[in-house]
Amino acid sequence: MSDGTGKPKTTTSRRRFLGAGLALGGAAIAGKAHAGEGEAAILEKKDWNQYLGDGVDARPYGHPSEFEKSVVRRNVAWLTADPVSSVNFTPLHDLDGIITPNGLCFERHHAGIAEVDPAQHRLMINGLVDKQMVFTMADIMRFPRENRVYFLECAANSGMEWRGAQLNGCQFTHGMIHNVMYTGVPLKLLLEEAGVKTNAKWIMPEGADASAMTRSVPLQKAMEDCLVAFKMNGEALRPEQGYPLRLVVPGWEGNMWVKWLRRLEVGDEPWHHREETSKYTDLLENGKARRFTWEMDAKSVITNPSPQAPLLHKKGQTVITGIAWSGRGTIDRVDVSIDGGRNWMPARLDGPSLDKSMHRFYVDFDWDGSPLLLQSRAMDSTGYVQPTKDQLRAERGTNSIYHNNGIQTWHVKANGEVENVEVS
Amino acid sequence: MSDGTGKPKTTTSRRRFLGAGLALGGAAIAGKAHAGEGEAAILEKKDWNQYLGDGVDARPYGHPSEFEKSVVRRNVAWLTADPVSSVNFTPLHDLDGIITPNGLCFERHHAGIAEVDPAQHRLMINGLVDKQMVFTMADIMRFPRENRVYFLECAANSGMEWRGAQLNGCQFTHGMIHNVMYTGVPLKLLLEEAGVKTNAKWIMPEGADASAMTRSVPLQKAMEDCLVAFKMNGEALRPEQGYPLRLVVPGWEGNMWVKWLRRLEVGDEPWHHREETSKYTDLLENGKARRFTWEMDAKSVITNPSPQAPLLHKKGQTVITGIAWSGRGTIDRVDVSIDGGRNWMPARLDGPSLDKSMHRFYVDFDWDGSPLLLQSRAMDSTGYVQPTKDQLRAERGTNSIYHNNGIQTWHVKANGEVENVEVS
Repeated sequence: MSDGTGKPKTTTSRRRFLGAGLALGGAAIAGKAHAGEGEAAILEKKDWNQYLGDGVDARPYGHPSEFEKSVVRRNVAWLTADPVSSVNFTPLHDLDGIITPNGLCFERHHAGIAEVDPAQHRLMINGLVDKQMVFTMADIMRFPRENRVYFLECAANSGMEWRGAQLNGCQFTHGMIHNVMYTGVPLKLLLEEAGVKTNAKWIMPEGADASAMTRSVPLQKAMEDCLVAFKMNGEALRPEQGYPLRLVVPGWEGNMWVKWLRRLEVGDEPWHHREETSKYTDLLENGKARRFTWEMDAKSVITNPSPQAPLLHKKGQTVITGIAWSGRGTIDRVDVSIDGGRNWMPARLDGPSLDKSMHRFYVDFDWDGSPLLLQSRAMDSTGYVQPTKDQLRAERGTNSIYHNNGIQTWHVKANGEVENVEVS
Repeated sequence: MSDGTGKPKTTTSRRRFLGAGLALGGAAIAGKAHAGEGEAAILEKKDWNQYLGDGVDARPYGHPSEFEKSVVRRNVAWLTADPVSSVNFTPLHDLDGIITPNGLCFERHHAGIAEVDPAQHRLMINGLVDKQMVFTMADIMRFPRENRVYFLECAANSGMEWRGAQLNGCQFTHGMIHNVMYTGVPLKLLLEEAGVKTNAKWIMPEGADASAMTRSVPLQKAMEDCLVAFKMNGEALRPEQGYPLRLVVPGWEGNMWVKWLRRLEVGDEPWHHREETSKYTDLLENGKARRFTWEMDAKSVITNPSPQAPLLHKKGQTVITGIAWSGRGTIDRVDVSIDGGRNWMPARLDGPSLDKSMHRFYVDFDWDGSPLLLQSRAMDSTGYVQPTKDQLRAERGTNSIYHNNGIQTWHVKANGEVENVEVS
């Protein structure tokens, strides 16, 4: 796989893929699914040639195939005291590309899913403004809009792994992330409409659910690239993503992207509310705490193979794939190791490279069937390189929950099963 | 709106948006939805502050809000003899950005929706190849993948409008289009695996449904950019989009993107099957027929306002928005007219500009409340400019069904209602 220069052998010669399919009339059979089948047996199974399916009147709003019913968000019952304040993880191992479909975007609530009526919903701007304003949804739809693809990652993503490998699947270790195209109004335009006073330095978005989520956001960020979004991937926000209105804070921790957004208070200092003091700060080894750690550091994870997606074909041509992202820009490079970080080879980045968006990478790999210690390491457009977990612990100790962007290791066994491990 | 130079007045000064929101304590009230409401009344309606919602265990696969239940695909009963061979239109007027959510992608079947079991599904390559091959889905997953966003437009999109304005809504006049991110294997790699003989010039993809859809595709296009796709917007293809496997033929008419793809025959001449002779050819005025009109010409339509999405606020700051696309590249420019094509102003293109993908445009417009004749006109990266319907008719007569990319006109009345009209 590696020739010692760190460069993988990624030729796309014909020889390389031989064996990936069944040559008719030959003896070669690849994969156990059709071992022993001849052409006649294969054709006999194509029942749908004989039947009419549902017509176009059957599915006004479509749904996945019945054969995909295992592709769902999942929660971890022991993680929280109650499902109304908990998290439902994105099945990253089932997905590809960089768009997360709306039905599978991870969700994290503090008081359950509010089902807000958009006709009743209002957004208030108050505090240090020339005039306090209340907008209906129809009002907001009259401002100029933008469309941007951004990742949203919970600061606690991978947090359960601070003290060692624990959860067996990238859905659970890294699934507090999604990546969608938002349509929304630049927050700047709404703030300018109210008229921000010259001594204003902060804004406080507030949610309309029973947790009334609040965070302090610097006015500079609010004016720079925040959106008040009402659509995701083309259609209205989903209720679990804050329908009808959410704040989009590109590159910054998900908790600040207030859902069911009903109020924006403008002030001259941060509010130091619960969700930025007792929560969303990092207790260090020396007893001090990091706070206002807004930006999400560059990070990556291999999504296939992974514990929920073993390598069933045992050996031969294999696709290794994963995702990478950075709150500070684009991803310039991802390296992959098959030996626990001793040697690295560059992965192939594929799909649009967009600012503060998920990126997709691949390594097209000829597996010899021996065990692997798979790792990925992202570098972003600022030159920052994703650290190891041990490097993070040396810096911050082991009390942290948030901002674990350490390198993940998957142990691929000879039988193709995969487990979450740590290497030192 | 126009200063005679064709350049719109699109300043984003504060003054311009005044009146789009309710100034608290002032007399100004914008929009009837909250006329007469004070701050107290507004806050009383925010019930969700008082209730816990569903927890994270409630929705393994999410769905839109109940308040969005009108956002669905729709069919036109009189259009076809039976819903198993018909079309379900994308609600373009309800969408924004450039990604079509999977549940709302238009569908067109010839024998209903096949519900193919991916474990049973096979893709065969036969004909002029060194060795005939049969691939399982697992085999296909072992080839290198790409992720690309492409529009898919039915050649018959807008076809009912050839002889004049007929259907009242862009969902029906232009809704045979969607735009998603595909994940798939370059067709080139699969053909190279089978070994294409030197005299091969064409391929014939075939579907596994009861219509066994076939089309002739030039080998050059197959080797250039076609994909054998298994995912759309991150998740598995939907059944109505050919789950588990469809051909992607970027920029070319949708009928060639064979769904439930089960076979690729390689040949030295086109097959002249039904769907490229009696259908998908254009009968001209002189009795001759255009055939093999594969590429979709540059086209655009204003999606808001439109007959299903009237201008309820009557006057003032207004967002005009729409979509544009070309089978030959990107969209370089969209112009919008409010007077039926006499004067034009450039629209603002927003969101990623990707090859053979939908583009989103906006005009941020201060409406004086007088009637409008709205039009949009796209120019693609080849310099081609979208024609008027009359220009198309002068060229091709009125017998055509396919490839109507003429400029669409919406008549916005003073009361905000919108109707489909033609101007000459």
